[in-house]
Amino acid sequence: MSPINHQIRLAARPTGLPQASDWNIVEEPVPTPGRGEFVVAISYLSLDPAMRGWMNAGASYIDPVEIGAVMRAGAVGRVIASEHPDFAVGEHVHGAFGVQEYALSDGAGVMKVDPSLAPLSTYLGALGLTGMTAYFGLLDVGKVNEGDTVVVSGAAGAVGSVAGQIAKIKGAYVIGIAGGEEKCRWNVEDLGFDAAIDYKTEDVRARLREVAPKGVDVYFDNVGGEILDAVLTRLARGARIVICGAVSQYNATEGMCGPANYMALLVARASMTGMVVFDYAARYGQAATEIAGWMREGRLISREDVVEGGVSAFPETLLKLFRGENIGKLVLRVGSA
Amino acid sequence: MSPINHQIRLAARPTGLPQASDWNIVEEPVPTPGRGEFVVAISYLSLDPAMRGWMNAGASYIDPVEIGAVMRAGAVGRVIASEHPDFAVGEHVHGAFGVQEYALSDGAGVMKVDPSLAPLSTYLGALGLTGMTAYFGLLDVGKVNEGDTVVVSGAAGAVGSVAGQIAKIKGAYVIGIAGGEEKCRWNVEDLGFDAAIDYKTEDVRARLREVAPKGVDVYFDNVGGEILDAVLTRLARGARIVICGAVSQYNATEGMCGPANYMALLVARASMTGMVVFDYAARYGQAATEIAGWMREGRLISREDVVEGGVSAFPETLLKLFRGENIGKLVLRVGSA
Repeated sequence: MSPINHQIRLAARPTGLPQASDWNIVEEPVPTPGRGEFVVAISYLSLDPAMRGWMNAGASYIDPVEIGAVMRAGAVGRVIASEHPDFAVGEHVHGAFGVQEYALSDGAGVMKVDPSLAPLSTYLGALGLTGMTAYFGLLDVGKVNEGDTVVVSGAAGAVGSVAGQIAKIKGAYVIGIAGGEEKCRWNVEDLGFDAAIDYKTEDVRARLREVAPKGVDVYFDNVGGEILDAVLTRLARGARIVICGAVSQYNATEGMCGPANYMALLVARASMTGMVVFDYAARYGQAATEIAGWMREGRLISREDVVEGGVSAFPETLLKLFRGENIGKLVLRVGSA
Repeated sequence: MSPINHQIRLAARPTGLPQASDWNIVEEPVPTPGRGEFVVAISYLSLDPAMRGWMNAGASYIDPVEIGAVMRAGAVGRVIASEHPDFAVGEHVHGAFGVQEYALSDGAGVMKVDPSLAPLSTYLGALGLTGMTAYFGLLDVGKVNEGDTVVVSGAAGAVGSVAGQIAKIKGAYVIGIAGGEEKCRWNVEDLGFDAAIDYKTEDVRARLREVAPKGVDVYFDNVGGEILDAVLTRLARGARIVICGAVSQYNATEGMCGPANYMALLVARASMTGMVVFDYAARYGQAATEIAGWMREGRLISREDVVEGGVSAFPETLLKLFRGENIGKLVLRVGSA
């Protein structure tokens, strides 16, 4: 066991894309658990577009990461030392352990996971908050019905790829919007989407007219910006837009670009509703059980895009999300597990 | 009875604010009813911000007014000739009779009104589509609850002034946003709003922080633009935004300005929903009965801002809406009734 805990701490609040100078790599001794505590050796870190928002000052749905603090991150790992009655050495756990190799925890918000049921990284993907976000966003907020036309943006990303698959399972006609031929092909050929639109080379609005002639009933939005505006022009009566993210805007330096076509909500008697997955914590277990069932039946794929390199690779790896370089859930391997 | 029917017809689709050259004043003979038809002598025309949208080409919640057609307008008047079994000479009626002095009708969409119960112009105000819009927007879409903090923009306008009063009746804490001291005073002193913000002289965001410290539960939006963006920053958890109109944007020549702060919907788990009053036609009667009851009890005031001058004054009078010069429901008196 290494005596050193490498950590990534926030050094400065970025303007635009985070830069190397916004981070400090710090070495600390591996912590020792006190009474009611345990130490986790982290195996995989979850990389999420939302992290960009956590780096900003000011009120949001979660407190900002303070300057000097270890960067917040979801992670899975293994308990290596414990003075906690409920967590034993050798157990695997999920929690907001931060961008570091070892985390001290009192168990708050920590869930045990079973690596014999699914690869550990999948607990950051379809069986983790990624899957929960897709599940509750699509079903509770989007209220998808059989036969609905569902459009998902960021469709080859972590949440989008799961949301589209759940929509298919629920009997919807599913259109993914993604950047690049490979992602679009993955949506249609591997995930079973009915159509995919490559926003980098195609006119999203014109293609939606072709593939969704009756209009869009549910739009699961991960990206915001021009794509949101394009989908707004194609809403069916009574459409539901789920606002899950706006990755196209997180690094904007001139202020967010709002949806200029929002009055389409009036024309279509449609709604646009924001969601935060934490509100559904009481139902995570039920959702994970259902998703695991779909995975066992081969109806839902969880794909993790695993980057090697440990915590020191975090600053550069995070940028892959904003460049659209990941397919599926982006995770950083930290330990050897 | 004049043998001439003066009409205002759409001559051109405007760019920005409608100009005199966008209209033609036409003289036609007063029509004669055929079998199943009747003729209405119009008393009052309803002037609505939505008219600006009807002048544009393209699909919306209602067909555009064609070039050369009589401008669409709601109106009240008196039947002066009838070959229709259900409408007798002397009866008073409401319908989409258009900007003209006399209208031929087959009765479709026409409702009888009783001038002994309320002044005829009130059937364009609180007892007409204005009142219906406020009622269903606030109650069905906004789902206002007792104790909610409700913000209404365009609060001294036709719909806003009624919406705010209904919110008060339902036990909400009501804040109006309006332009100018006179309107704000009217909101608070005559309509009983708890507070009013003068957007022309006050910082809306800062004032909302003062008067709605717990955040905004329901925002009834008639204006869009910067005021919508300001209210978005002050949403309470689970807030409902009713998108009824966007008068600040209807004459924009550089494209609509969308709400840059729309991601506040996510932070607040809030929704933004569009509404069109026509969807509630089956319940107009019930709503009008309830509103009439509130008026009788002195709990709700319908104020009509009556402009004289007949149909030829329509082009200039319409602009009062976009200059914010009306208080209450803007109507144009056409006949002598």
